[in-house]
Amino acid sequence: MTHDGSKTPPALDPDTLRVIPLGGLGDVGRNMTCFELNGKILIVDCGVLFPEESQPGVDLILPGLDYLADRLDDVVALVLTHGHEDHIGGVPYLLRQRQDIPVYGSRLTLAFVEAKLREHRLRDAVLHTVAEGERVDVDEFGLEFFAVTHSIPDALAVVVRTSAGSVLHTGDFKMDQLPLDGRITDLRGFARAGAEGIDLVMADSTNAEVKGFTPLERDILPNLERVFAEATGKLVVACFASHVHRVQEILDLAARHGRKVCYVGRSMVRNMAVARDLGYLHVPGDILIELSQLNDYPDDRVVVVCTGSQGEPLAALSRIANRDHPVIGINPGDTVLFASSLIPGNENSVYRVVNGLTRLGARVVHRGNAFVHVSGHSASGELLYLYNIVQPGNVMPIHGEERHLVANAELAVATGVPRERAIVAHDGDVVDLRDGVAKPVGRVDASYIFVDGSTVGDVSESSLTDRRILGEEGFISIVAAVDLRKGEVVAGPDVSARGFLEAPTVFDDVTTKIAAALDAALAEGVDDEHRLQQVVRRTVGQWVSSTYRRRPMIVPVVIAV
Amino acid sequence: MTHDGSKTPPALDPDTLRVIPLGGLGDVGRNMTCFELNGKILIVDCGVLFPEESQPGVDLILPGLDYLADRLDDVVALVLTHGHEDHIGGVPYLLRQRQDIPVYGSRLTLAFVEAKLREHRLRDAVLHTVAEGERVDVDEFGLEFFAVTHSIPDALAVVVRTSAGSVLHTGDFKMDQLPLDGRITDLRGFARAGAEGIDLVMADSTNAEVKGFTPLERDILPNLERVFAEATGKLVVACFASHVHRVQEILDLAARHGRKVCYVGRSMVRNMAVARDLGYLHVPGDILIELSQLNDYPDDRVVVVCTGSQGEPLAALSRIANRDHPVIGINPGDTVLFASSLIPGNENSVYRVVNGLTRLGARVVHRGNAFVHVSGHSASGELLYLYNIVQPGNVMPIHGEERHLVANAELAVATGVPRERAIVAHDGDVVDLRDGVAKPVGRVDASYIFVDGSTVGDVSESSLTDRRILGEEGFISIVAAVDLRKGEVVAGPDVSARGFLEAPTVFDDVTTKIAAALDAALAEGVDDEHRLQQVVRRTVGQWVSSTYRRRPMIVPVVIAV
Repeated sequence: MTHDGSKTPPALDPDTLRVIPLGGLGDVGRNMTCFELNGKILIVDCGVLFPEESQPGVDLILPGLDYLADRLDDVVALVLTHGHEDHIGGVPYLLRQRQDIPVYGSRLTLAFVEAKLREHRLRDAVLHTVAEGERVDVDEFGLEFFAVTHSIPDALAVVVRTSAGSVLHTGDFKMDQLPLDGRITDLRGFARAGAEGIDLVMADSTNAEVKGFTPLERDILPNLERVFAEATGKLVVACFASHVHRVQEILDLAARHGRKVCYVGRSMVRNMAVARDLGYLHVPGDILIELSQLNDYPDDRVVVVCTGSQGEPLAALSRIANRDHPVIGINPGDTVLFASSLIPGNENSVYRVVNGLTRLGARVVHRGNAFVHVSGHSASGELLYLYNIVQPGNVMPIHGEERHLVANAELAVATGVPRERAIVAHDGDVVDLRDGVAKPVGRVDASYIFVDGSTVGDVSESSLTDRRILGEEGFISIVAAVDLRKGEVVAGPDVSARGFLEAPTVFDDVTTKIAAALDAALAEGVDDEHRLQQVVRRTVGQWVSSTYRRRPMIVPVVIAV
Repeated sequence: MTHDGSKTPPALDPDTLRVIPLGGLGDVGRNMTCFELNGKILIVDCGVLFPEESQPGVDLILPGLDYLADRLDDVVALVLTHGHEDHIGGVPYLLRQRQDIPVYGSRLTLAFVEAKLREHRLRDAVLHTVAEGERVDVDEFGLEFFAVTHSIPDALAVVVRTSAGSVLHTGDFKMDQLPLDGRITDLRGFARAGAEGIDLVMADSTNAEVKGFTPLERDILPNLERVFAEATGKLVVACFASHVHRVQEILDLAARHGRKVCYVGRSMVRNMAVARDLGYLHVPGDILIELSQLNDYPDDRVVVVCTGSQGEPLAALSRIANRDHPVIGINPGDTVLFASSLIPGNENSVYRVVNGLTRLGARVVHRGNAFVHVSGHSASGELLYLYNIVQPGNVMPIHGEERHLVANAELAVATGVPRERAIVAHDGDVVDLRDGVAKPVGRVDASYIFVDGSTVGDVSESSLTDRRILGEEGFISIVAAVDLRKGEVVAGPDVSARGFLEAPTVFDDVTTKIAAALDAALAEGVDDEHRLQQVVRRTVGQWVSSTYRRRPMIVPVVIAV
């Protein structure tokens, strides 16, 4: 089921549909898939991955866009399944390379994309709004869109029909049978498409390891209600800035409990304005107030809806917990509700914020001590429904780490998909679909592309390795000036360090050693800076390792005057 | 209930028992409490805290030992409740300061301590073995020990009786009513002590937020059994190196399923030898094999019991997942069982290992997809039993982050402890117990002491700040030699960087700018290195911020020749 294809893929035959995941198969993030037929390329999603601590200083990670560098003119469409960052965050970086790639997506998705493109000063994008039920033909590809339920409104799945076969790409989805907005995942449509024939299903693996079913969003309502009922002071609710349904619940509860609502956080303010303008968010009466008005109301008459639910250090909630927010303070008796998931890896930051808020006297309600969040992704039970109703010839799990992809493939196998047709592919794997059979045929480069400050792709793995060493151990820098003709040290050695020990006398001993080593080398006739630097490096390296059992970076500079 | 005591504590009255937590109240780790009466000090526990990513390069964090620097001769005993690192890991660093402090603990605890002291070449420690039911008088302090159940055998709680009042310190405990070794937490003893009068309970807060009761250890046995029954290839089990009961279960299952057992990992080999020698671990027949013999047996006849359950990068399991272990490889069909908790903050590392093993074809069973672990700590239900049976006058939760301490205090209040006597104290808070009332009276310094390589306490917060900047952004170093008399640059500027961008031409532009800025400054008569360095720093800082929107550390060295 897994494979080790490392070869270059063969030239593409006319009757073959080629599928190339450029991100999202191995990580939860940077989702992107290319479909290729007869020289034309269709892209589904173009998202970002947020870095973890082993990628220090990196702002964002892009999918393997480099694969498209020579093929940009062959791209006939970019389809976006929904408006989450891990599906649309990379769009500006792609359009920067060719701005007139036609982009297809639902109304809300494209509204979020437009705001993003404006920030990147990309004003000439070609955006086509589509909706569930619509069919669009783009060159070799016949697209049909289906409603799916997710933790953002207006999410779509897409069926891609071609002369070489048909693919159902689910995007992110769950099957809440009683969603708040009544817009359920279109299982009936999936059934019809399956009956017409789907050769390949590419389905969201995020929760494939989770037993059973994702609970209904409405099942958390009584618990949210109770938080409102019990709150005596200020109420602060943190959630994702794109979770329109969750914010709708908060607005409705606020109206019922006579509290005004104040959005805090740039993305929250922006997204909720977009969602309201487009009719996805219904704001009761004059319930909204500005941050500047917040302190005009008593604490028990307001709700702050803010970003920072993942403990992001610069977001509003962290600043509130650190008593560092210019307007919002927490007093004993206030309540803070985390109406959000806890993304694995964020535990330390989230609990640092929870502890800070607790110490200020807040009652903190989070998914660790109350049922106040449900996932936006299908659990294993829902994936079984999907496979049974579509009955695909092949599956290729997407959107997950290795463990999720494998679990998803196993579910397909359990419903009767032959094991050899349940393909656990990874980013960069090339899978060809022909005569109803999907098969890995090779690999292309889909490496991480790091965005760091204003640079894209200039930070390499070796820079990151240096950062890891510097971050763990710091560095010792040694500067000396030598007169190579006279064979003598004319200034220095000056030894200093950062992120290492700080007592000024720490380097007295080794400074003498370095001077002696340089004198000896010069006396032996060593006459280039590079070799003298090696002498310094060796001297300092031995000293620091034997004296402190540590390995800081050693940066010797010998300069010839 | 919480408080803000930041004042220096008053001199201690003769009839007052002073309690000073020096670690563990605010973190899960570095547990240590001092009790003081009439000039004598009793210490309970002396553990370490493992650093998180915001403390880069740090090996261990010690409790606030500095408080004892001038009081070492007043210490009459160190009591150790059990053998986990967060309770005994700091002992060598304390005994290094005064080796003959009398140490009290159970047989297994002291055996683990002895091994540790040997590694630190401390051979003259004074160790006193105690057991549940025993009473020992040490100067002002009457000690009575009670059996408690925990995830390591031979754990103890201690009641400290003095002329100024009595304290029950639970250590770490849970109330498994059917533990595998039959050694239950001595609730009957707690009841008697409570009836005699306990003024203050200091109880384990780790799971105070968890509803209900910690499940029985034996409830996981059928699931472990099933893993053995279903395993067709090699079986690798990862767990904590001190979890003797868990290893006992694995040994028994291995015997029943005809598999040999191989310990892998230095601490696992050492601890299990100690536990066996002392009779805490019963090894069936000739079941153990050496690592060198492992490949003499077919895969389905062996179990590897190894360390690395938290994804530690250097431990056996990570190396196996990276195909980097000299002996042990994973093939499709092998099974890996994580029979361990997932310590918050370790998710990324653990799942990196899970994904690596999955990719090699292993079936990975972990607490995320099966019920194969129970906690070693009391959940809220058990803490309610404790408070109801002891009926203390005051409580002071220990062993937890802020949120755990507050939850634990709330439980005590729910059982009838007056709110003002449920004291949420933090490391360094000084609490005096007098006439049956506990009250915060001030603070002492209990800051983190960092162990890094062979240095203790030499790494400061400002070194860590430097490391964080270096680790996120890298540095740019600029070296120039100047002749101050002639007012000219005689060599350089040489610009180089690590952890920043790498293209050699990146610095062409700024090198010219620096040279010009130095020339201008020298022409204006600037004639000391320090001010010239500031000129360089400013020039480079402006350039890097406007060109790259980044803030690497800038390290200018201007050397006068």
